[in-house]
Parts: sequence; structure tokens; C-alpha cells
Amino acid sequence: MTEEVRLAHGSGGKETQGLLNEVILSLLGEDMKKVKGGVGTDELDDGAAIPIPGGYAVITVDSYTVKPYFFPGGDIGELAASGTINDLLMMGAKPLAIVDSIVVEEGFPLEDLRRITGSMVETLKRVGVKLVGGDLKVIPKGGLDGIVITTAGLGFAERIIVDSNLRPGDKIIVSGTVGDHGAAILAAQEGLEVEGGIESDVAPLHDLMMPLIEEYGPAIHAAQDPTRGGLAQALNEWASKTGYLITVEEDKIPVREKVRAFTEMLGVDPLTLACEGRAVLGVSGDNAEDVLGVVRDLGFEEASIIGEVRESERYGGMVVIKAITGGLRILEPPSGVIVPRIC
Amino acid sequence: MTEEVRLAHGSGGKETQGLLNEVILSLLGEDMKKVKGGVGTDELDDGAAIPIPGGYAVITVDSYTVKPYFFPGGDIGELAASGTINDLLMMGAKPLAIVDSIVVEEGFPLEDLRRITGSMVETLKRVGVKLVGGDLKVIPKGGLDGIVITTAGLGFAERIIVDSNLRPGDKIIVSGTVGDHGAAILAAQEGLEVEGGIESDVAPLHDLMMPLIEEYGPAIHAAQDPTRGGLAQALNEWASKTGYLITVEEDKIPVREKVRAFTEMLGVDPLTLACEGRAVLGVSGDNAEDVLGVVRDLGFEEASIIGEVRESERYGGMVVIKAITGGLRILEPPSGVIVPRIC
Repeated sequence: MTEEVRLAHGSGGKETQGLLNEVILSLLGEDMKKVKGGVGTDELDDGAAIPIPGGYAVITVDSYTVKPYFFPGGDIGELAASGTINDLLMMGAKPLAIVDSIVVEEGFPLEDLRRITGSMVETLKRVGVKLVGGDLKVIPKGGLDGIVITTAGLGFAERIIVDSNLRPGDKIIVSGTVGDHGAAILAAQEGLEVEGGIESDVAPLHDLMMPLIEEYGPAIHAAQDPTRGGLAQALNEWASKTGYLITVEEDKIPVREKVRAFTEMLGVDPLTLACEGRAVLGVSGDNAEDVLGVVRDLGFEEASIIGEVRESERYGGMVVIKAITGGLRILEPPSGVIVPRIC
Repeated sequence: MTEEVRLAHGSGGKETQGLLNEVILSLLGEDMKKVKGGVGTDELDDGAAIPIPGGYAVITVDSYTVKPYFFPGGDIGELAASGTINDLLMMGAKPLAIVDSIVVEEGFPLEDLRRITGSMVETLKRVGVKLVGGDLKVIPKGGLDGIVITTAGLGFAERIIVDSNLRPGDKIIVSGTVGDHGAAILAAQEGLEVEGGIESDVAPLHDLMMPLIEEYGPAIHAAQDPTRGGLAQALNEWASKTGYLITVEEDKIPVREKVRAFTEMLGVDPLTLACEGRAVLGVSGDNAEDVLGVVRDLGFEEASIIGEVRESERYGGMVVIKAITGGLRILEPPSGVIVPRIC
């Protein structure tokens, strides 16, 4: 059997990392992974940083393939704009501009395309990020199921937030309920009706992150938007990058009741489902309560301190969760495909 | 009948421009099209420019969908790296870093993926451009015919080259034969054997442009890599942006003999076929011979002065070609689909 790309390679987790290592990163050599003094493929953070006078240019790229492209709470256009803006913000950068590339199948309804680009532009307008360039390609009928949008963003940071800077004593804050986006897409793909509906949380996090970066910059040691693989993936990346133990308490993690019920029914852990409008922050212990207060005052009322970072010889590099029932277990990084084309 | 995206919308010419205007540009409003003092979707040059201390950050994005993904003279990986590097160079910028996003179909052979990423990395190494970040998505089987690679690039320019700066008296220089890439893809798609073979010209233009930018920067008024729509599209964009007449002489335009014979057989104009390793330059009349000499000395021996820029009341905004046979005709911007998935 020929070795082939498998769906799990696109999960965003271990398998993705393994494939990228094999086909790209191992070929690069240290001097090709970043611009000197910056952040690049040696760290694989939310974006890359390139030193410029006065700070860093931050650049990031993501392709959006979500299906269905209209889903409860948003669409692929809003997702593409939000995702790229959020990656810049999670690096501590003020988003300045994005460029987009649309690849669409011949025969795609123009009305749908207009709705999609309309939401993308609307999202950018909300946060004042300019659309400065782009590309458009059409694939002959049968060559692509729908549409793929790729957005790259450019931001500027005086100081960058690099996840490897997480430290013992830091508190872990999430800005809102987790798993909403993943659950919404899963329900839509499976054609399952959920009472009251589950809406994606897709949104740009500009109104949350810009004030935090300005007021509490140095206290924010790590920041990530937990997309593919959800909170479980994000925390495991932090633990594994730093070698510290992260402990979280399940009953502190905000999960919508209908998301919990829906995922329980399907046997899926909401902590492994993508969010597209949430931040996970690693905040210095001294400032965590203050930061939480500010976050809530900014309108993110479900924000919560869910855990902390510790040194541990035995559990260093792992995430341990105290279940609602009281028991402790290791929260593994998700593997396999949880939901295909989730983002 | 519902309005649908047509193949011609992806031609890179008038239809593409029309669709982009309708679904994106018209929604933006002037203040959303660029970062103040820079270049953005108001100009639609090879890339966008954002003012930073000491000059401009230049950013560009393109999706590559070429089929077949291995073709005579190159592959989609080399194409993705070269295309983005060239767009930065054509803005007068030194390319610093790229980020890539790969969207691939489940079941895609890993060996092919390795070859593709291998050429991409090799191309970047040749010119010292760092690969600082990326994304990978897998589409379930049947959802994508093969692979799409999107690359975004970041460069730095002290002075940018903006095509609207083209002036009467400027000479037009092409750096080599035109139409090779388009002819190679066309032959491969149609399964046509050409005696001796036609190879794509795909290559990064670093070795050409960096010395020119450094030595002759202010004399280079306009620069473009004539990809979709070829030389005919590039020159028409310049004429239409500036309102000047561009005249070219067909017998000065380098076209490989086998490309000419092959395109004549198919009834296609090689001037409308994509190049992926050529530059078209608008150079101040006083410096044009010197610049041509430098270009040839740099190893681009087929480079040629093919025409000039004039003021004209009657033909302003148009491109007029003096045919080999002696007659004059208007060189129209190409319309319709010349070759699908050409780049």
C-alpha cells in the first residue's frame, strides 16, 4: 500500500505535527526556520515574528475549509477573517492588514460567494483591519467541493507573546465557553437538531486582546485561540513546550449546557472541540484576578480561571484535570479526526 | 438560472477583476483598502505595502492550483515559492520570509507531497528566504482534486516599485522568453508531445531583481511578473492604470521557437500565456540600455527591450503591437479561459 495523506493528518494535533515534521520542518535546517531574532517554524506558535525597528512584524496564514460554509452563528468568511485576526492578537500584535486568497469551484453560486465575502469584509470593518490584497482561483467543476479561503495577516507588536514563556505559578484563564464552534459544525454535518440550537462562537477577539495587551502586556505570558483540537490541544501544546505540569479543574471550565448534553450523547469531549472566538491565557499569578476582572468587564462574562502551571518531576509536560466527580486524570492531546473540515 | 462562478472568473483578467470588484472591492470603502500611506486593494499591484520605520513592509498572497502538479521544468512547490518571492521582488522588496498553507485531499500520495514540499524548501533555500509558519488541512476524499498550496510572503522595501509610476519615455524590458510556463502546462494537460519538450520557466527572480533594485532602483518605474494572462495582460494593466500608450514590436519579444510552433498549431497567442520566471520592467529611457546590459550580464541573455511608453490622446490606455509582418494592431487584454489551473 502506498503511504497516503490521511484525514487525521489534518486534525491539527500530533498527526499533523508528525506529517509537517516529516515533509517540511526536517528539510529546513535551523537557519531557514526564522528570521534572526524572531519566531518561526522552530516554535510553531500562532504566528511568526520578524524583528523590525521598534518591535516585530507578525505574520500568520491559515486556510479555511469548513463545511457547511454557512453554519449556525457564522460562515466561512467570518471564520477566515476572525481566525487570522485572532492569531495575530495571540502573538501580542495589533492586527493591521490581511490579504485573502479564494479558491472556488466552477458553478459555485455567486449569491453564496457574495454573502461569504460580505461577512469577511464586515468582520474586518468591525475591528478596523484593512484588506490590502488578494487572489482568486477557479477550479473546474468536480475539482473542489465548494470553497477554500486562505487569509494571511500582518500585525505589529512592540512585545510578542510567545507560549514558551509560560511559567510556574501562572494561572490559566479561558475567555468564555469552550467547544461551541466544534459542536455547531458537528451538528450541522450530521444533520442533528439540537434543542435551542448550538451556535458557533466565531468572532474576532480584538475587543478582548487589545486592552489586555496594552494594560497587562508583560503579565500575559502565553495566549492561544484553541481552534483544532480545542482546549485539550492548546493546553497540551503549552505543557509540552515548557515541560511544566498544567492542572485544570473541570467544574471551572465553562461549557454551555446544550453543548455538554450534545457532546455527551455523541461521546465526544467538548474540551477537544474547536473554538473560534475564545482565548486561553497564561497569566502571572499576581495579576490573574485583576486580569479576570478586566476580561469580565470587557463583556466576556463567562471568563474563568480554570487552572494553573506548576513544576512537576513526574507530570512535567502533561495536563492533569480534576474531574467534576473529583477524580484526577491526564487530559491527553486529542488524536485522530474529531470533525473533518471543522475550520 | 442562478448566477454562478465561471471558469473565466479565474483567468486573472477582466472577468476576475469584475468579480472581485463586485464581491469584495465595492464593499470595502476607501479607508479599508490600504494602511495609510501604503499600497493596497486600491491599486492591485503585485503586493501590498504597509509603511514602517525606514520603508515598507510588503505582503502578498497567492494560491497555486496548477494541474498536473508535476510538470516539465518544475512542480507546484517550486511554483508556490517562486510566485510569492517574485511578487515581493516586483514591489521592489527584499523577500524575507514566507508562510505556506497546504490543502490536500485525503489519499494524496505522501511521496508526491514530499517531492512538492522538497522543491518548495529547495527554492526558498536558493534565495535565503525563511519559511516561518504554515497550516495544513486535509479534505475528505472526493472533496478536492489533488492539492492547493497558498503562500504569503513578507518583504522589506526602502522604496517600493508601483506600476502606476510608469512614465512616457520609459522603455519596456522583458527578462527572457515569454509563454514557456503556459505552453508547458497546456501541452501537459492536453497530453500533447512537443518535439524536444517545452519546459516551464518557473524560477525565483531574486538574482535578477536584487541587483537591479540596489543599483538602479529609482530608474525602475514599474515591474511585474507576467503570470495569468501573460505579457498581454501585464502590459494592458500598465496602460490602463496610467492612461499611456504602450507600443511593442513583436520581433523584439523573445519567444522560443518550439513555443511559437506549438501555440500556432493550437491557435493560442504566446503573449497571453503565463510566465512564472520572467520580469517585465518599465525603465527610464536614459537608463534602459544600461539596465539591459546589466540584466544580460546577470545571465538573462535573452532579455530584450521590446517597446516603450508614450503619451497618446487617441490610444492612451492601450497596447499597440507592431507585428513581425509590419502591420500595427491593438494587443487586447486576454479574456476567457486560456488554460484552466495554469498556476
